[in-house]
Amino acid sequence: MRASTALLTDRYELTMIDAALRDGTGDRPCVFELFGRRLSGGRRFGVVAGTGRLLAALRDFRFDDDELAFLRDGKVVDAATLDWLAAYRFTGTITGYREGELYFPGSPVLTVESTFAEGVVLETLALSILNHDSAVATAAARMAVAAGDRPLAEMGSRRAGERSAVAAARAAYIAGFGATSNLEAGRTWGIPTMGTAAHAWTLLHETEEDAFRAQIAALGVETTLLVDTYDIRQGVETAVRVAGTGLGGVRIDSGDLPIVAAEVRVQLDELGATATRITVTSDLDEYAIAALAASPVDSYGVGTSVVTGSGTPTSGMVYKLVARQDADGAWVSVAKASTDKASKGGRKAAFRTLERGTATSEIIAISDGFEAVDTPDEHPGARPLQVRFVVDGEIDPAFEGPAGVEAARAHHAEVREELPVRALALSRSDPAIPTIYVDA
Amino acid sequence: MRASTALLTDRYELTMIDAALRDGTGDRPCVFELFGRRLSGGRRFGVVAGTGRLLAALRDFRFDDDELAFLRDGKVVDAATLDWLAAYRFTGTITGYREGELYFPGSPVLTVESTFAEGVVLETLALSILNHDSAVATAAARMAVAAGDRPLAEMGSRRAGERSAVAAARAAYIAGFGATSNLEAGRTWGIPTMGTAAHAWTLLHETEEDAFRAQIAALGVETTLLVDTYDIRQGVETAVRVAGTGLGGVRIDSGDLPIVAAEVRVQLDELGATATRITVTSDLDEYAIAALAASPVDSYGVGTSVVTGSGTPTSGMVYKLVARQDADGAWVSVAKASTDKASKGGRKAAFRTLERGTATSEIIAISDGFEAVDTPDEHPGARPLQVRFVVDGEIDPAFEGPAGVEAARAHHAEVREELPVRALALSRSDPAIPTIYVDA
Repeated sequence: MRASTALLTDRYELTMIDAALRDGTGDRPCVFELFGRRLSGGRRFGVVAGTGRLLAALRDFRFDDDELAFLRDGKVVDAATLDWLAAYRFTGTITGYREGELYFPGSPVLTVESTFAEGVVLETLALSILNHDSAVATAAARMAVAAGDRPLAEMGSRRAGERSAVAAARAAYIAGFGATSNLEAGRTWGIPTMGTAAHAWTLLHETEEDAFRAQIAALGVETTLLVDTYDIRQGVETAVRVAGTGLGGVRIDSGDLPIVAAEVRVQLDELGATATRITVTSDLDEYAIAALAASPVDSYGVGTSVVTGSGTPTSGMVYKLVARQDADGAWVSVAKASTDKASKGGRKAAFRTLERGTATSEIIAISDGFEAVDTPDEHPGARPLQVRFVVDGEIDPAFEGPAGVEAARAHHAEVREELPVRALALSRSDPAIPTIYVDA
Repeated sequence: MRASTALLTDRYELTMIDAALRDGTGDRPCVFELFGRRLSGGRRFGVVAGTGRLLAALRDFRFDDDELAFLRDGKVVDAATLDWLAAYRFTGTITGYREGELYFPGSPVLTVESTFAEGVVLETLALSILNHDSAVATAAARMAVAAGDRPLAEMGSRRAGERSAVAAARAAYIAGFGATSNLEAGRTWGIPTMGTAAHAWTLLHETEEDAFRAQIAALGVETTLLVDTYDIRQGVETAVRVAGTGLGGVRIDSGDLPIVAAEVRVQLDELGATATRITVTSDLDEYAIAALAASPVDSYGVGTSVVTGSGTPTSGMVYKLVARQDADGAWVSVAKASTDKASKGGRKAAFRTLERGTATSEIIAISDGFEAVDTPDEHPGARPLQVRFVVDGEIDPAFEGPAGVEAARAHHAEVREELPVRALALSRSDPAIPTIYVDA
C-alpha cells in the first residue's frame, strides 16, 4: 500500500470540516473551482499539468490509523470528525481541462462537485500539484517553442526537491521535452531517460583520454562525451581521436555557448566527425535557447530553469467555493468580494473559439449550479475544454499512469498548433487571447 | 517499508558506475564535496537545511527488485552493475555543516568520503534535498530577521509541490518560523501546526455572522476569524459582536496591509477588543514584512514567497569530486578547469573566525586527501564548522527526525546572533563575510 496523501493538507481544511459537521453545513452540495486569476510571470499562455498525478493522489487520500492518531493526539479535530475522516472516500465528480491543454485567466482548470466537507479537504493537495506542475509545463512549453525542431532533455532534478523533480520531468515531457535524466520519472511515468557522464568521470581518471576510452568501452562510440573538463579544443581533439569519426556526440557545459558551439562544429568537421552531434547544457532557459537558434547545436539539456518554472516557480492558481446549495436546496453563486482578489461565482463551462484553426478567445459560460452547460449559442463550433476525470467517486483510469502522460503530451502538441503567432513571443505580455464571460 | 529513494537519481550516475566497475576505477577512494560557488540571489548569507532529510533518504536508498527490474528492462546498466546495485549500502563517511548553520561561497556544506561508485550515486539526491531546503531556509531566515519578535507561520503548501511543501515547512521552521499549516510536516517532523478557516467557510454560510458563530462554537472565542470576505470594517464589527471582546484574533488576507491593519487596530480598540490580535497573510515576503514593522500587526502568515525561496527557488549548490587516490593509492586533488565554473580541488576543513562574538570570516583549509585538519595556526579559536553525520556507513541518529529538527532550529538561532549587522539588510549584496582559503 502506498503512503497516504491525506495529511498533505493545510490544517484549516480539517478545522473547517470539524466546524461544518457540527453546524450541519458539511453536507451542503457545493462547487469548488481551481483557476488562475492571471497568468503569473507575464506569460502569454499557460499549460495545465498535474491532473494525472492528482488522480493518483486521490486514490491514496485516506485517513488510516497513523493519520487519525496524529489528528487525535494533536486535538486537531473532535471525535465525530475523526470518525468521518476514517470513512472518507471522495464520492463527488471532478471535471476539468485535460493535461497539456492551454489555459488563460479565469479558465476553470478543475471543478469539484461534492459536499462541502468532501471537496474542501482536497484544496491544498490539488493546488500543490497543479500549481507546481503547471508552472513547469508552462515554462517548458516556452522552451519547446524556442527550440523548434531540436530535441530538449530535462536534467534539473538536482535543482528541485527530490519528489518535485520527478513531477517536473513529467510536466516538461507533457509540454514538449523529449527525455529526462530522472530515473524515477522513467519508472513511474514511462518517460525516456538519458545521460552519460559528469565531470567527476573525467576527474576520476588520470587523463581525459583514459576517461573517454573507458566510457566508450562501456557505452560504445555512439555515446556523448563531455569535453569541457579541462580545455574544450583539446577535449574535442581527444574525443575524436579516441572514438573515431563515428563519435555520437559531444556535450558542452560551460563557456559562451554561441561562440564555443560554432568553434566546436568547425573543429569536428575538420576532424571528419561531421555527423557528431553537439549538445549544450549550461544554464539554459528559453531566452538562451532562442539565442542559440542560429548556432550549430543539435540538442539542448535544460536544468534549473525548467524545474523552477523559469522565474515563475508556481502558477498561483486558487481553489474557491463558487456555488453551494442553501438550506432549502436552492443553488447560490458565491464569491469573495475583496477588491484585489475578487472572483466570479457560479459554475463555469469553458470553450475555445477558433478561426481557421487559430484560437481567438476563451469563452466561459456561468451558471448557478450543477447542471451541464451547452456550447453558447453565440459561439457555435467553439471547442469544449472540459472532460470528466471522476464521476461519483469513480476515477477514469484513462487519465492516469504512463498512458495518461502520453495522451497529455499528444494533446498538448495538438493544441499548441492553435496558438496565435503572438503567443509564441517570449517577452512578458498580456494573455494571447481574451477571456470572455457569458451567461449560460 | 518506506519507498526506495534510489531512483531519485540522474541516469548518468548509474552509467558512470557501470563504466567505472568495468575499468576498475569504481573502487578508488574519493572525496566528493557539496558546496555553492556563490550565494544565489545576492544573499548576504545562506542557511543550510535538508541534511536530516538526506540522512533519512540514505536509509531508504536501496535497489530492490522493482528498481533493479526497471534498470534491467531499460538496459540502463549491465548485469554486473545490477548485482553491485542490489548489494549497495553506503559504507563511507559523511561530514558537513549542521542544519541551521550559516554558509558562504565555498563552504564545504557536505563532504562524502567513499569509493567513487558509492559516493557518485548520491549526487543527485543530496543536491535535490539540500538545494531546495537551503533555498527555503535562507529566504525564511531573511523573513525572520524582518519580522523581529513577531511570530511567523508558514502556509505556502499550495504553492509548492506536495512533498516539497512538507520539506519547506521543515526548512522554514529551522530558520525561525514558529509554525506551519502543513499537517504532514506536523506528523513527520513534529512542527507545530496552525490554521482556522478560509474564505470558503464564510461563503458556505448564508451570512458572515453565521460563519463566525459556527466557528466559535467549534473552536471557542480564542480562535482567529477571517474578516475580509466581504467588507473588512463590517467583518470586524460582526466578529467582535459575535465573539465578544475576548476574541483571539482577526486575519486579514487582502488589501493595502499597512493602511488596513492600522484601521482594524483602531476599530478593535474602539470596540473594546484591545487584546485581539491581528494576523496578516496576503502575499507577504521579507520586504512586505519589513514594511509592516511600524504597523500594529501581531503575527505574519507567509505563503508563496517562503516556499519558493523568495525569488531564489534553488540554492545552486554543486557536488564535485575534489580528491581521489591514483592507481598507486596516493591522494590527488582534482578540479574542473572551465573558466566560468572552476572549483578548488582538495579536501576542505572549515572554520569561522569571530571577533567579540561576531563572525568575521569563513576559513577553508585545503588538504590533499582524507586526513583530518586542525584549526589553522594563524586563526586560533576559530569555530570548527563540520560535524560527522555518517561514519563508516553508520548514520548518527542525533541528526534525524523531530529531535534533529529541534536541534537545527536551536543551532540556527544561536549562530544567527553571530551575523554582523550588514548581513541583516535585505538588499542584494556580496556575502557578509569573506571566504579565505588557507593550506592545511
